[in-house]
Amino acid sequence: MAVTDHVHGTSHSPAAANDGVTRDIPFDAVINLDNGDPTMYESFWKKMGDKCTVVIKGYESLSYFSNPKNPCWFLEPKLEESIKSLHGAVGNAVTDGYTIVVGTGSSHLLNAVLYALASHPQPNQLNQINVVSAVPYYSAYPEITDMVRSRLYKWAGDAHGFDKDEPYIELVTSPNNPNGAIQGSVVNRDGGILVYDLAYYWPQYTPITSSLEFDIMLFTASKCTGHAGSRIGWALVKDKEVAKKMIKFMEVTTIGVSKESQLRVAKILQVVVDGCKHFRSPEGDNFFETGQNMMKKRWKILRETVEKHQMFTIQNYPLQHCNYTRGVTQAHPAFAWMKCKEGIEDCEKLFRGHKILARGGRKFGSDPGFVRVSMVGREEEFNLFIDRLSKIQSFNNGDGNLD
Amino acid sequence: MAVTDHVHGTSHSPAAANDGVTRDIPFDAVINLDNGDPTMYESFWKKMGDKCTVVIKGYESLSYFSNPKNPCWFLEPKLEESIKSLHGAVGNAVTDGYTIVVGTGSSHLLNAVLYALASHPQPNQLNQINVVSAVPYYSAYPEITDMVRSRLYKWAGDAHGFDKDEPYIELVTSPNNPNGAIQGSVVNRDGGILVYDLAYYWPQYTPITSSLEFDIMLFTASKCTGHAGSRIGWALVKDKEVAKKMIKFMEVTTIGVSKESQLRVAKILQVVVDGCKHFRSPEGDNFFETGQNMMKKRWKILRETVEKHQMFTIQNYPLQHCNYTRGVTQAHPAFAWMKCKEGIEDCEKLFRGHKILARGGRKFGSDPGFVRVSMVGREEEFNLFIDRLSKIQSFNNGDGNLD
Repeated sequence: MAVTDHVHGTSHSPAAANDGVTRDIPFDAVINLDNGDPTMYESFWKKMGDKCTVVIKGYESLSYFSNPKNPCWFLEPKLEESIKSLHGAVGNAVTDGYTIVVGTGSSHLLNAVLYALASHPQPNQLNQINVVSAVPYYSAYPEITDMVRSRLYKWAGDAHGFDKDEPYIELVTSPNNPNGAIQGSVVNRDGGILVYDLAYYWPQYTPITSSLEFDIMLFTASKCTGHAGSRIGWALVKDKEVAKKMIKFMEVTTIGVSKESQLRVAKILQVVVDGCKHFRSPEGDNFFETGQNMMKKRWKILRETVEKHQMFTIQNYPLQHCNYTRGVTQAHPAFAWMKCKEGIEDCEKLFRGHKILARGGRKFGSDPGFVRVSMVGREEEFNLFIDRLSKIQSFNNGDGNLD
Repeated sequence: MAVTDHVHGTSHSPAAANDGVTRDIPFDAVINLDNGDPTMYESFWKKMGDKCTVVIKGYESLSYFSNPKNPCWFLEPKLEESIKSLHGAVGNAVTDGYTIVVGTGSSHLLNAVLYALASHPQPNQLNQINVVSAVPYYSAYPEITDMVRSRLYKWAGDAHGFDKDEPYIELVTSPNNPNGAIQGSVVNRDGGILVYDLAYYWPQYTPITSSLEFDIMLFTASKCTGHAGSRIGWALVKDKEVAKKMIKFMEVTTIGVSKESQLRVAKILQVVVDGCKHFRSPEGDNFFETGQNMMKKRWKILRETVEKHQMFTIQNYPLQHCNYTRGVTQAHPAFAWMKCKEGIEDCEKLFRGHKILARGGRKFGSDPGFVRVSMVGREEEFNLFIDRLSKIQSFNNGDGNLD
């Protein structure tokens, strides 16, 4: 979801092509910052050593079932427990009174939510429910919604422009993907159901200002801890009937969710929870503190680079008190939403010319003068990006024909 | 799929409720043989010990990507290799010239196949493709097909009754779920595309008579090795464009497939391949040989029980030469497809009255006089089932009012 940032076909560049091993990137390699592959966190997890290691024996976890007493019978009890502890430790979401539904990433859960909210007992229901989201919206929403051309729901575009007197589902991504803004609903009319995609509502990306308790909240391990390869997302769902329908969707589409991934993510989250107790400890085992410092550093470098040549603008974020770190901080989003200065019409194309793959504004329902750049890739990629960004700026401010 | 047998809401019985640990079942417990939870294989995997153990460190497999050079960029190279070795060792399917697409179980792959075959460049395509399968068909097919009421495809029922002059997709499950029969296509007309669901085409269930090379073939770890909790299925797809669309479907719906599960299943399959070299070895490390012996034993007991009282009939299967075991054998399917004798109208209900949950014929497009019973559960469950089956028979042949 906004969450698990959608991976596009542009992924075959050698720099983005590695599978967990840090290695040098050739100086002239294409660097892929199009998707939000959160490999930045690898160094933290290396430092944590064996306490994060999972061992699974050949005879374990054969059954489809994880916990038949739970309506979500494929949810591993240990994962459920870790999710609750984590939200408790971070203070970003209430879990009491919610049903937890696990999914194969949060895209899967979004599919399940659409099904759950739009399915009616009447088989001949005429109108599809409109699915809207405020521009700039997560680029995968239209595709997820319209993939198999469901008669239950349809993508209806920008929430700002939605003026039909019809039922609707509004997807609210907060902090927003691509631009990092804290958002609320836009339409605010009767007949609307809100789904909060909170993939980035973690301390490394944004100040935690309250413990949210919306009806439907989606989270993912991918952007929380960086374990994108595990494909674990979870939904906190207030209405038991909606949760049941989501569980049914999971049953029919994939008959549950990988147990190996659930057990591993359960362990990782528990290590994160344990680390939450210590701030500024010499062990540096507070994941969110470390993550926030890494993001802060990258954003500082990006801001300096951008400000130097005045060729791009990037968002500013307000200083806010973070209940988790207990300090005042600003957001350091997982993506930079960059706008080219006047006269450059296609920012994605400009970047591509400099061997940087990034996602153009049009895919987010916005202007091609914008481009979204991942800030959570490997250190070497980020450094190469900054290096090339400086060159684009020098080139276009000097000999380039774009200025 | 037929494969990963679909789990229904009837799953909350205590006997089926455990998660990998063998334990005694209370004598009066409800036993759940409704779904095909393949826990039977647990004993084999216990015996195999540490060579099947996987160890995954906290920093491994963070990225979304497994192999960016592969069109199926989320397929772990080790899994690809193991799948090819396995089909080579068993001789049940050709892999040369095929694209392997991995999925979160084979239900997920079936969804992807429907999308890939039915999606057209025209956005306003009027007719949905008909999806058919011969009765008795896998009970989840109608639900999988019509889940979100797609405009691309629709469930059109029994392949035997399909007489429209319209495009169609025929799902051929062979050996068939529920009845274990080896099947081919039924409709045989222009405009049809065949999808082979080969979940049960493994030596423990049926003689391997040829190495298949159909255009689209689906397999799953769940029924092959019993690792249902891992949710790993794979498709062998001849047409590269169809494979690409399936991969796109996986991208949009779940952004790939759990790496932990893929790595574990890769290891398990490799252990199976290694064991394939030895027949009748004292170590008993040939998984399919062991599995076949287990199934043979259960079927023998079931046949004896059924024949004793003449209250049910079960299928007979022809003796055939198996290229894998190099001997003549008959099928020992993962499910028994039992028919009550005349006068008993609802076999599922009869079983339920004796605390046996099984799936009634109607769900397979067939007659409620049939019931499908899992043969791959735990030893204790199977024994309890046989015990109760004897009692049903005695009861109804003696004092019962059904005879």
